[in-house]
Amino acid sequence: MADYYHVDGTLVPVEEATVSVRDRGFMYGDAAFETLRVYAGRPFAWKRHADRLRRTCETLGFADALPGREDLHERIVETVTANGLTDAYTKLSVTRGVQPGKLAPNSSVDPTIVVMVSELPRGGVDGKPVWSEPATVETVETRRIPDSAVPANAKTHNYLNGILARRESEGDEALLYSTDGYVTEGATSNCFFVRDGTLCTPTADLPLLPGVTRDEVLDIARQEGIPVETGRYQRSDITSATEVFLTNSTWEVRPVIALDSQSFEVGPLTQRLQRAYDERIESLY
Amino acid sequence: MADYYHVDGTLVPVEEATVSVRDRGFMYGDAAFETLRVYAGRPFAWKRHADRLRRTCETLGFADALPGREDLHERIVETVTANGLTDAYTKLSVTRGVQPGKLAPNSSVDPTIVVMVSELPRGGVDGKPVWSEPATVETVETRRIPDSAVPANAKTHNYLNGILARRESEGDEALLYSTDGYVTEGATSNCFFVRDGTLCTPTADLPLLPGVTRDEVLDIARQEGIPVETGRYQRSDITSATEVFLTNSTWEVRPVIALDSQSFEVGPLTQRLQRAYDERIESLY
Repeated sequence: MADYYHVDGTLVPVEEATVSVRDRGFMYGDAAFETLRVYAGRPFAWKRHADRLRRTCETLGFADALPGREDLHERIVETVTANGLTDAYTKLSVTRGVQPGKLAPNSSVDPTIVVMVSELPRGGVDGKPVWSEPATVETVETRRIPDSAVPANAKTHNYLNGILARRESEGDEALLYSTDGYVTEGATSNCFFVRDGTLCTPTADLPLLPGVTRDEVLDIARQEGIPVETGRYQRSDITSATEVFLTNSTWEVRPVIALDSQSFEVGPLTQRLQRAYDERIESLY
Repeated sequence: MADYYHVDGTLVPVEEATVSVRDRGFMYGDAAFETLRVYAGRPFAWKRHADRLRRTCETLGFADALPGREDLHERIVETVTANGLTDAYTKLSVTRGVQPGKLAPNSSVDPTIVVMVSELPRGGVDGKPVWSEPATVETVETRRIPDSAVPANAKTHNYLNGILARRESEGDEALLYSTDGYVTEGATSNCFFVRDGTLCTPTADLPLLPGVTRDEVLDIARQEGIPVETGRYQRSDITSATEVFLTNSTWEVRPVIALDSQSFEVGPLTQRLQRAYDERIESLY
């Protein structure tokens, strides 16, 4: 738990970090966000996060109100520093702010910008991963919202779809299908599996949020010469896999040891990617 | 604009009405709400609203934490009274509150309860409707979220689907179709039309929120001996209608004079239902 958050340009004690009940972020979940890791006091993969935050704000129609990325970067660093942290988890939210009481938004936006942090040590090449336990995953009945209703590549405060999925799962993560039956992603993670030595992950053409860590892992795999495939997969594609893992900024590369009643080993390709991911971070921070 | 809101059991000046940025209502839109009218200081159709609020909380999995309906009723009345109002618009929200930092919710819930009000005079039988202008409506590309992703009959703070729809429409309201092409509802209203003297509205089997005002209007129509039909309709069913109107707690019965490029008259059945609705309120309050 941190001592200070950053709200609307000011560092405030956590217990005083609030937003108006009239803020559209509270009333409607009308807000964009990013969760990111900070290593050695610097946000990891900042350009990718900043690019995606902008795309989310474009989808929601208030990209013009988004402060510059240097400004946002500075708020994160200030918050991390104020809490005396160097390795941390950060959530950066930008809401459409307070507007007169109609659902249809005004084009004039005074955004509310919130930075929340908490300590999260890195695992490191020689250390233990912070999330040392491999994950158990359950497939759920809740389907991923189709892009025609709310574009899945917008990372917003409308998170009930994932919450309903997590409530259904007794594992660490819930695996969601699209309404037409393809594997999409976990409630807060992307899903990878290994089949005949090829690293596979659902295509971003499906309704899913292509995570920053997903992109990093795909980059690393290509650099390492590992065959990579993106596609439309059904459950049988995963159950016939030899390795399965999840990715997000917090978990990084997290092996899956169970999908419903089926068990998996923590396989060699997963371990290789975990190590390569840690090395990439060590080399940069 | 009001002077006081009710937050977590206490009346506070509007400018001090806030929630923690750690509240799940802010972080995820993890909250249920109702909007309702207050006439003569008393919430209209309170039982229907309280029933639906409970159903939403059941869907979200925190119904056990919902205070009793007398308690909630009292908070509304207190807020309206504190602002010196008798006829008002009210929004009652119940969030899952602050919990440790995971998406998967805890079963132990300390909800955050917010009542917001603003003055809204009634039209009355002999008066002018508050929303005196009939509505223009545009059909939009954004589709209603299917029930398999988030049940549409849960009224929650995840409202981006409606916001994206409203942003597409240059009219007063946006009309959304289901992913399989049926007319569902407006972003904040239910839709009715008249065909061959029969009052028609999309069935609640489709992904839509069956509004309290929708139920009241269906009741009134049956009492008045007007033929009523609920079903699955396509756009051509509405464009071939002789009358179209929208309902919600704020608009009550609001005639539609344009759907895209097509014009409609404010017809006799719409006017009859408007009057009967006003009479029902006058008889009760």
